[in-house]
Amino acid sequence: MGRRKISIFGSTGSIGCNTVKLLLQQGGSSNYSVQVLTGGKNVKVLADQAIKLKAKTAVTAHDEKLNELRFYLKDSEINVAAGKKALIDSSHIKSDWTMSAIIGAAGIEVGLNSAKHGGVLALANKETLVCAGNLLKEIALKSRTIIIPVDSEHSAIFQCLRGEKEDSIESITLTASGGPFRDWPLEKLNYVEPREAAKHPNWSMGKKISIDSASMFNKGLEVIEASSLFALPKEKINVLIHPQSIVHGFISFKDGSSIAQMSSPDMLTAIGFSLNYPNRPHIKVDRINLSKVHNLNFEEVDFNRWPALRLAYKVIDLKSTAATVYNAAKEEASEAFIEGKIGFLDMFTCVDYVVDYLNKKNYFTTNNFGLSEIIETDSLSRKITRKHIAKSHF
Amino acid sequence: MGRRKISIFGSTGSIGCNTVKLLLQQGGSSNYSVQVLTGGKNVKVLADQAIKLKAKTAVTAHDEKLNELRFYLKDSEINVAAGKKALIDSSHIKSDWTMSAIIGAAGIEVGLNSAKHGGVLALANKETLVCAGNLLKEIALKSRTIIIPVDSEHSAIFQCLRGEKEDSIESITLTASGGPFRDWPLEKLNYVEPREAAKHPNWSMGKKISIDSASMFNKGLEVIEASSLFALPKEKINVLIHPQSIVHGFISFKDGSSIAQMSSPDMLTAIGFSLNYPNRPHIKVDRINLSKVHNLNFEEVDFNRWPALRLAYKVIDLKSTAATVYNAAKEEASEAFIEGKIGFLDMFTCVDYVVDYLNKKNYFTTNNFGLSEIIETDSLSRKITRKHIAKSHF
Repeated sequence: MGRRKISIFGSTGSIGCNTVKLLLQQGGSSNYSVQVLTGGKNVKVLADQAIKLKAKTAVTAHDEKLNELRFYLKDSEINVAAGKKALIDSSHIKSDWTMSAIIGAAGIEVGLNSAKHGGVLALANKETLVCAGNLLKEIALKSRTIIIPVDSEHSAIFQCLRGEKEDSIESITLTASGGPFRDWPLEKLNYVEPREAAKHPNWSMGKKISIDSASMFNKGLEVIEASSLFALPKEKINVLIHPQSIVHGFISFKDGSSIAQMSSPDMLTAIGFSLNYPNRPHIKVDRINLSKVHNLNFEEVDFNRWPALRLAYKVIDLKSTAATVYNAAKEEASEAFIEGKIGFLDMFTCVDYVVDYLNKKNYFTTNNFGLSEIIETDSLSRKITRKHIAKSHF
Repeated sequence: MGRRKISIFGSTGSIGCNTVKLLLQQGGSSNYSVQVLTGGKNVKVLADQAIKLKAKTAVTAHDEKLNELRFYLKDSEINVAAGKKALIDSSHIKSDWTMSAIIGAAGIEVGLNSAKHGGVLALANKETLVCAGNLLKEIALKSRTIIIPVDSEHSAIFQCLRGEKEDSIESITLTASGGPFRDWPLEKLNYVEPREAAKHPNWSMGKKISIDSASMFNKGLEVIEASSLFALPKEKINVLIHPQSIVHGFISFKDGSSIAQMSSPDMLTAIGFSLNYPNRPHIKVDRINLSKVHNLNFEEVDFNRWPALRLAYKVIDLKSTAATVYNAAKEEASEAFIEGKIGFLDMFTCVDYVVDYLNKKNYFTTNNFGLSEIIETDSLSRKITRKHIAKSHF
C-alpha cells in the first residue's frame, strides 16, 4: 500500500493550517502523498505548506496571485495554478482523503467533486451540506465516499454514532457556547460593535465565523447541516447553551441512554478524527480535565435572543433552496454589519426578510435542483439582500 | 427463530425485579421463553414473577422455603426446586440471555456456569469479575459469550467502547456520586450510623450496597472489575466525584476525544442495554434533561476520605486472590458495621489489615487459581476478619 493521497482545499485558513500542522506531526510527506493544496491571497503561507508537505500542486483562487506563488515555488517541482477554474479543476485530481475547508458557498463545487473520489471527504465547509446536502449524499453514496464532518458539533455526533444504528436515535443535541452576548441585556444587542461580536470566548477562529457564532447564524447552519448529514427531522435536533464548550454534542437514544463527545475546544480533535478514522492514534492536543473545569453548565436556548436559530428550523421545513437563501443572505448581511452599514440584530431582520420574500413568491417548490440552481439562488439572494439593505434605513 | 431463552439469577433483588419489569414491558412470555428464575427468601415474589413470565423453573436458594414456593406455584406447571445445589444445577440450563444478579461471592459459580451458554451474560454480580475475572473471560471467550456489565459505570464504558478499538483507550473514568458523606468533616466519619450510611442521594438500592457505596468499597470493587473486564492497568482507570450521577463513565481516547454515557440514575437503562444489545428500542425510563439539571459537577476523589478506594488500586497490583480477600473482608466488616460492632471507618481498617496480613504471608503468589481457591480464600478472609473484629477494641 502506497502513501495515502491527501488534498486540502482552503489550506491557508484556520482549519487548513491545523490540518497541515497535523499532517506534519504525523510524518508529513513520508506518510502522505499530498496532491493538491489550495489557498486564497496568502500565497506565502500556501507555498510554505506546499514545500513542507512536498505537495504536487499548489493553487491560489486569485489569478493575480499566480506570479507571486510562482516566485515562492520557483526552486521546487511543485505545479502552480491560479484562478477559479484551476481551483475547480484541481478538485478532480484523485485523493484518498480530502479536506474541504474553503469558507462559504465557494466551497460547494469543490466539495461535490471531492465526494467522487471514494475514501474520506473531511467536510469543514458547511455550505456543501447546507445548500447541496442531497446532491452531496447521492454522489458520496455512489462513490462510496465516507463524509466525516469537521465541525466540532457534527464530529461529536458522528463519533457518538459509531457502532450504533441510526434508527436508534431519539434526538441529537448540538451545544452552543452562547458566544459573547449570552448574558447581554436584549435591548443592548443592536448596539453591538463588529469587534465585540468577533470575540469568541472559547474558540479561536476567523472574524466572519466568530460573528456568525455570536449571532447564532452559525448554529443555524449547523442545525440545517445536521438535519441533512444525519437525515433527521428538525424535531429531533436540539441546541443547548453550554458555555464551557467541552461537550460538543450528544445523541439521546431511544433506550434512555445518551452518548456525548467531549474534548478541549481545539479543531485539531475533529480534524484528527477525520484524518485517522477509524483509528484514534495519539494527537498532541489539550486533554479535558473535568475536575479542573469543575462545572459543566447547560441552558435552554433563548430563541428571542437568537432569532437566527429559530429561522434555521423554519428553513429546514421550507426545504428546496431555502437553506441556500438563508446562507447567502446571512453572508451579505454579516458583510454589511462588519462594514457598519447595519446593526447586529438587523442581520437577522435582513435574512428573515429575504427568506420570507422568496417564500411568498413560491420560490421553494421543487427539491429537484442541481448546482446551477444553487448558484443562481445564492446570487439572487445576495442581490435581494443588498437591495434591501440599501433601501432600508437601518 | 424461536423465542429467546432467558434466565435470571437473583430475580427477587433490585436488579432482578427491574429485569422482570422490563421483560414484561417488552412482551413477556410472548417474546421470551423464561427458563430459570432464582431468588432468596422472598418466594412469594419469586412465584409471582414465575407465573407472570411463564417460567419453566423457579428455584429458591433456601431449602426451608421449598414448601412455601411449592404452595404458591401449586396450580402451575412450573418446576420448583430449593437449596444451593439446585441453584447451581439450574445455571447449567441453557439460556440465550442470562442475568447474573445474585449479590456477593455466592453469585460467582452461577456466573461462571452461565458464561458457558454462548449468547449474552448480563453481569450484575460484581464478584464474578472481581474474584474470578480471568476464569470468566476464558470461559466466555471459549463459548463465544458476550459479557455485558450491568453496573451503570461499566455499562457506560461498554457503551462508549462500541465501534471503537480497545487499543485507542488512553484512560477510562468511572464516576462516583460521593454518597451521603461527600461533604462531612473527616473527623465525624467514624461516628456515622448504619442508617445514615444506607441513605444514597441518587440511587435507590439495597441497604448493603448503599453502605458499600458510602464507604466507596463499592467503587473499589468497580475499579477492580473495570480493570478485569476491559483489561486495563490501574493507571488507566480514574474515578471522579460527580454528585448528579448523570454521567456514569467516559473513555478518553488517545486522540484527545472523550466519549461519555449519560442517563438518569435508573438501573433499567443498563439492564435494557444488555437485554436489547445490539439494539436500542424504546425503554420507559426518565430522560435526562441537562438544562433542568443545569450543572454537572466533577471533583477529584479524596483518597483520605475514601481509603477503601486507594486500597482497591493496591489490590489490583497484588493480583492473585487479593481481590477476593478485599471483597470477603469487606462483606464481613460491613456486616459488623450494620450490627453496630465497629465504626464506619473501622470497616476500612479491617479490610486493610486482612489484605496486609495475607500479603505478608506471601498469600498472593500465584495467578493460577480456580473456583475452589477463590472459595477457600473467601472463607479464610472472612474468618480472619471476624477474628480481628472480635479481638480488637473498635
